[in-house]
Formats: sequence, C-alpha cells, structure tokens
Amino acid sequence: MSEHKTHKTINGVDVDQLFGTVDVIKDKPDVAKFKFRAQNRWVNGGHNRTTVKDFYGAGKEDTSRTKPFVFEEDEPPILLGEDHGANPVEYALTALAGCLTTSLVYHAAARGIKIDEVESKLEGDLDLRGFLGMSENVRNGYDNIRVTFNVKADAPKEEIEKLVELAQKRSPVFDIVSNPVPVSVKLEEKN
Amino acid sequence: MSEHKTHKTINGVDVDQLFGTVDVIKDKPDVAKFKFRAQNRWVNGGHNRTTVKDFYGAGKEDTSRTKPFVFEEDEPPILLGEDHGANPVEYALTALAGCLTTSLVYHAAARGIKIDEVESKLEGDLDLRGFLGMSENVRNGYDNIRVTFNVKADAPKEEIEKLVELAQKRSPVFDIVSNPVPVSVKLEEKN
Repeated sequence: MSEHKTHKTINGVDVDQLFGTVDVIKDKPDVAKFKFRAQNRWVNGGHNRTTVKDFYGAGKEDTSRTKPFVFEEDEPPILLGEDHGANPVEYALTALAGCLTTSLVYHAAARGIKIDEVESKLEGDLDLRGFLGMSENVRNGYDNIRVTFNVKADAPKEEIEKLVELAQKRSPVFDIVSNPVPVSVKLEEKN
Repeated sequence: MSEHKTHKTINGVDVDQLFGTVDVIKDKPDVAKFKFRAQNRWVNGGHNRTTVKDFYGAGKEDTSRTKPFVFEEDEPPILLGEDHGANPVEYALTALAGCLTTSLVYHAAARGIKIDEVESKLEGDLDLRGFLGMSENVRNGYDNIRVTFNVKADAPKEEIEKLVELAQKRSPVFDIVSNPVPVSVKLEEKN
C-alpha cells in the first residue's frame, strides 16, 4: 500500500489520503484530536463579527491558513438589526447544511460512489418568546429543523437513501444540533 | 406609552421597539413564530456553498433582504479540502459566538445597561474518530465547547456576570447546541 503513487480521487476527495488518515489514527488515536476556534467582537446593536483562522489538529497547531475567514452577523430590521449579515440561527443552519453535505460526499467517496449533485434546503421553527423570556413552555432555539436533500449520483435510489442516513449518522454538526454539547461560559479574569 | 415619539436606543438596540414587540406578542403569540432557512449546494470535495435570504416572521414572509448572504464552506488540506471557507464545525462556533453576544447586548439594553465592548473566544474539542466511524465511544461532534467573554460595561462586575449568565439563559444557539433539537432529514420525492 505504501507504493501508491497516483492518488485515487472520488467526488474531489482524495480517497487514498482518507484511508491513510484512518490507518494513522488506528495506531495513534491522538492524531484524531482537533480543537477548532472562533473569536467574536461586538460592533453595535445586533451586529457582531466572528473571525476563524487557527486550529489544532493531527498533533500540532495548523498554520496553513494565511488569512482569517471573517463573518458579519446581524439581525434583520424586524429583529432590531441592520442586516449586515445573516443572523446567528441562520449560521447554525449553514453549519448543519454544510456538514451533512460534506459527510455525505466524503462517505460516498470512501464507498466508491460517484456523486453528481447534492442540494439541500433547511428550515427551522423558532418562537421568539423563548429569547424574550416570555414563556417557560417555549424553548429559545429551534423547536424543529427540516432538511430536504436532492442527490444525483451514479447509484440506485436505495443506495442514495443509505448515503443520506449515513450523512446523519456521521455528521459532527448533526450530532451537535441533535444531541447535547456541554458548553462552559466564563468571564475573563483580569489582573 | 403610545405617545413615544423619540426612540430610546441603548447599545444600538431600539429599546422602545423591543418592548413594543413584547407587547404585541403578549396579545398575538403567533407574531413570535419565525421560520429561518438556508439552501446548500455541493461544489466539489469538502467545498459547498450555503445561501441565506428569505425567512418567515411576524405573520408574513419577510422581503426586506434584497440579496442573499452566501457562505463558502470547505475543509483545510489536512481534512482533505482546499480551504475555500471555514468548515461546518467552525460555522457552528460562529453561530454560538454571535448569538451569545447578541443575547447579552439585547438583554443588557432591555435592562438599561450600556455596554462598551464585548469580545469572546471559543474553542471546541472534536475527535475525528467519530466522523470516521472508528469508535462507538467517540461522538461525532464537539465533546466540549469553552467560551471566554471579555465585557466592558458601565456596570459592576457582579452585574456583568449576571449578563453573561442571562446570555446563556436566553440565547437560541446556546440552546440549540446545549440541548437536543429534533432534525428530520429526507430525500426529495421526484415525480
């Protein structure tokens, strides 16, 4: 296997590198440990800005990114903002959409299934009374999120249905949204 | 109260509009029901693109946005991508950061507390063995997310600590991440 010179790529995913990563992690599980990060700064009202750049993974700080990804977050006027960017719950849908798609495409590649197109539409129901603290019976976040996929692939429908199931089964953001994640929040200690 | 002509703004938040919204929702709870949306299209490999524009709220389809917000999502090279954008779990941190900040700033405004600065740093631990399906004992998403706030405000430290607690108590994305959200995923039915 170490003689591989030409890399096999399916769906734009380097499958040899994918299986190579799995092999390395089998021997060294710590290689699988990543730390992802974000920094946020309030601008005004509902407008704030998140910056994403460095992360830790495969045993070291990753320095491959030369510049940060910068995201404007705001609320639309009806939610007292000025619409400088999508709002945070829309970013949550963005995270979920991208992660389900990537999970589907990567796991299809690992199975040798060529994908032609993947599209998805997401919709989440949110009742503002939660955020406003107006009712104990209303949660703050989404009550429910619906995702509809449209997948074209070189595979029978049953196989595509299995891929959509696999995407849910393996997607990190699907897990983050569907299951509880412990979040600790603290104020910085000043000296 | 209906005689208000000049709007009171704190932290860039129109507090009169905020309390006016609360009053309207008390009478008509359906005004609080929103539906947020996102569409995603796969590009290649780990690269896909999410578009956010329309939403439903306050009893109607909102048409105030003239153009969509477009987000490139990708993975860094070490995760087999080409780094065209932040990755989905980084978007999840972006959502959480923005939502905690907005919740803090809006609820401070409602309490008449003027905020000068809000900064936050987020870090989440993720073990790739979950995504790769290599261990039943490893979850796919974040094991843990740590948020550190730095808040400067015209208030004593105890009051700022209460605001940070209130941000967690009211933030929609904090709820989405900390607690389970039902997500239904289906394949589009073709005729």
